[in-house]
Amino acid sequence: MTAVDYRGPVSNQAPPGPTRAVRVGVLGCGNVGSALVELLQHEAAAIAERCGVRLELAGVAVRNLAKARAAAVPEGLLTHDARAVATDPRVDVVVELIGGIEPARSCILAALRAGKPVVTANKELLANVGAELQAAADEAGVALLYEASVGGAIPLLRALEVSLAGERVRRVMGIVNGTTNYILSRMSEDGIDYAEALAEAQRLGYAEQDPAADVEGFDASAKVAILAGIAFGADVVAGDVYREGIESIAVADIEFAHRLGYEVKLLAIAELEGEGEGAGIAVRVHPAMLPSDHPLSKVRGAFNAVFIEGEAAGELMLYGRGAGGRPTASAVLGDLLDAAGSLAAGRRPRRVRRRRLEIRPIDELRAQYYLALDVADRPGVLADVARVFGDHAVSIRSMEQVGLGDEARLVFITHTAREADVQATLGDLAKLDAVERIGGLVRVIGPERSG
Amino acid sequence: MTAVDYRGPVSNQAPPGPTRAVRVGVLGCGNVGSALVELLQHEAAAIAERCGVRLELAGVAVRNLAKARAAAVPEGLLTHDARAVATDPRVDVVVELIGGIEPARSCILAALRAGKPVVTANKELLANVGAELQAAADEAGVALLYEASVGGAIPLLRALEVSLAGERVRRVMGIVNGTTNYILSRMSEDGIDYAEALAEAQRLGYAEQDPAADVEGFDASAKVAILAGIAFGADVVAGDVYREGIESIAVADIEFAHRLGYEVKLLAIAELEGEGEGAGIAVRVHPAMLPSDHPLSKVRGAFNAVFIEGEAAGELMLYGRGAGGRPTASAVLGDLLDAAGSLAAGRRPRRVRRRRLEIRPIDELRAQYYLALDVADRPGVLADVARVFGDHAVSIRSMEQVGLGDEARLVFITHTAREADVQATLGDLAKLDAVERIGGLVRVIGPERSG
Repeated sequence: MTAVDYRGPVSNQAPPGPTRAVRVGVLGCGNVGSALVELLQHEAAAIAERCGVRLELAGVAVRNLAKARAAAVPEGLLTHDARAVATDPRVDVVVELIGGIEPARSCILAALRAGKPVVTANKELLANVGAELQAAADEAGVALLYEASVGGAIPLLRALEVSLAGERVRRVMGIVNGTTNYILSRMSEDGIDYAEALAEAQRLGYAEQDPAADVEGFDASAKVAILAGIAFGADVVAGDVYREGIESIAVADIEFAHRLGYEVKLLAIAELEGEGEGAGIAVRVHPAMLPSDHPLSKVRGAFNAVFIEGEAAGELMLYGRGAGGRPTASAVLGDLLDAAGSLAAGRRPRRVRRRRLEIRPIDELRAQYYLALDVADRPGVLADVARVFGDHAVSIRSMEQVGLGDEARLVFITHTAREADVQATLGDLAKLDAVERIGGLVRVIGPERSG
Repeated sequence: MTAVDYRGPVSNQAPPGPTRAVRVGVLGCGNVGSALVELLQHEAAAIAERCGVRLELAGVAVRNLAKARAAAVPEGLLTHDARAVATDPRVDVVVELIGGIEPARSCILAALRAGKPVVTANKELLANVGAELQAAADEAGVALLYEASVGGAIPLLRALEVSLAGERVRRVMGIVNGTTNYILSRMSEDGIDYAEALAEAQRLGYAEQDPAADVEGFDASAKVAILAGIAFGADVVAGDVYREGIESIAVADIEFAHRLGYEVKLLAIAELEGEGEGAGIAVRVHPAMLPSDHPLSKVRGAFNAVFIEGEAAGELMLYGRGAGGRPTASAVLGDLLDAAGSLAAGRRPRRVRRRRLEIRPIDELRAQYYLALDVADRPGVLADVARVFGDHAVSIRSMEQVGLGDEARLVFITHTAREADVQATLGDLAKLDAVERIGGLVRVIGPERSG
């Protein structure tokens, strides 16, 4: 390419065309709902100028009137009746931000059946009854959009569904829960222990008082089910996802990982295996050791990122704030404008067809494993332990004793092994007298290293 | 959120609907064209199953018949006549991969006027006559898509145009040229000098034999013009972009940057300044010192990444392979399927309206500056130099002498200053007897640091 500076002869100021009004009904006015109402109020004029669509708030259904008032919703638009907003003929597009299964599900179905496009950020709903909602949307020929359900403002779903429509995606692997990434980052960077890091995350508002949904991996499971569905054109529900949380990760495990050139992250992974009729997908959430120079290893604090591997596209990563009212509301707004566009265009064809893909059980996973055992510090213990590995054809790549006496710990990295064999090994190790406790089991991502 | 595993009652296997055939005419069969032809041949069946669209190669226009044969284009589809393919009634969508201004421009205009959507990867064309092409597309009511023109397979343009449609984007800042990032990475990580790193990049095929388009920043300028146009809804041409290349960056500059906690990257930056009537944009390409913990600082080798700052969305980064036949062809394929969808939907409305935005001259930039001067090592020199800074109201944050005698070098970091004042300072410094050479001038990104 050479340096050309040639401005075309035709003026670019095409007549902008009329601005259409699109009336938005919002169900739920919590964190995201309030942020959305605020954005609609402040940005409507700029959006109308930019996109030719004037988004007008036509109704807000709330459980708690006081909260909605804090978001400065005009009094006349407030109601307790979510279903009425969902089916109101004066509403063109419905945004569902109630969360949970019911009444969100019935409201969305009612809106779709009334011919209204729906935008939702409800990961739990999509990861459980997404197929039912999509079928209703297809039948009505309207859009069901949910970019905000995974990764906040990160434009993940549209990238997978539209930009990568022609791509053979092999793996989607991401940090999709900011709470656990914050906790692991604090443990990794500052050496503080899990309980302290969790308490801090709770103080800062990153973690709920009941942190189970985050730290046990439920939130990430719902998100990876949604990602897998779009990446592979398959119906995947949260219950299909193998799930482990981060509660058993100790600072010692992370320090050992660092010495080996790894970082510990809670990863959500969806992989396509095989081709054609024999194809299947593996979908799982668990802590993993990732090479320190992997782009995901550098994602710190409450940030999220998803790494996509495609056959032609190569490696891609999309990074950003995965949660929070304003980032999530930004994604809702993008979907709202997309839905508004499809209203004008008429019937909206579904982009990606779904197919049945077998969900591969975790037992069939082949990976390297990091394993820590608290053991009695006496002669012969290693031989007993090694024999158990050998009995199950799990080959040890490296072993190291950390600490002495009561603190003695054996730390292993295996060669690539089958999950079922590793689990059988763990079962038998637990029976050994000399093994006092089985500590972290962490799967290792990436090619086997020599030495 | 709690752990729900509730599979909806409705079967998800909606009837897939008929598969439509969409006939594709390809203009140009070089690196990207060959990869596209290959992808179309290998992936057509999988894409048809997934998207309900069967992409059929209907014609390939080439200059070099031998090359096209290498890509296994069926003989009957080959022609030298690009314009004939662009207007062939048997072609539904046209892909332009010729590159350069003519004949690409006339072929695209002819295709659009014949009512055919056009997909192109031609950054030079878009950054110079994009407004003319877009006006023709708007008039015909068909899609003009060019995701592949910036950042290879990274789904950048659709993210900015659709997902972030409701977002107030403040800044788009990226590494959009893999060649220069490869060279700077080698200089930074291995301390080899510019000439050697360039020669290596040429050997590896990352750099052309005439590297000017890359190392002088022309390629990045075209890309940032396209990004700015979409992010801010403004018409920006390559000639609007202030441009500096990496030729004057020395390993010594990079080493000094490291000591201060910075990395040196060639950045393409588009910023919105002000609001409403007084709004303007600054668009520029130049080497910059970026804090080492900034996500862009960690983008190594030939990879590209774009960092987007929005008011509600916060910080986002999209990362991937920014060039190469297959990644670029993957982006073309995504656009092709998007265009195929819009064919079925009928007239395609333009998503983002363009407005006039003043292009702010580089003179008005306010930044911190790194500056290296080769000077005579004798008493009084610093006083003379410092006086020149003071005369132009450029305040020095830190100064250091590196080397002695003939090797003496003064290295400065300024406080935030106006570009025009810094340039005037440079002009006067050059007149000082004691200043033998003005070395690197590198703008520093990020907030001012104390100390």
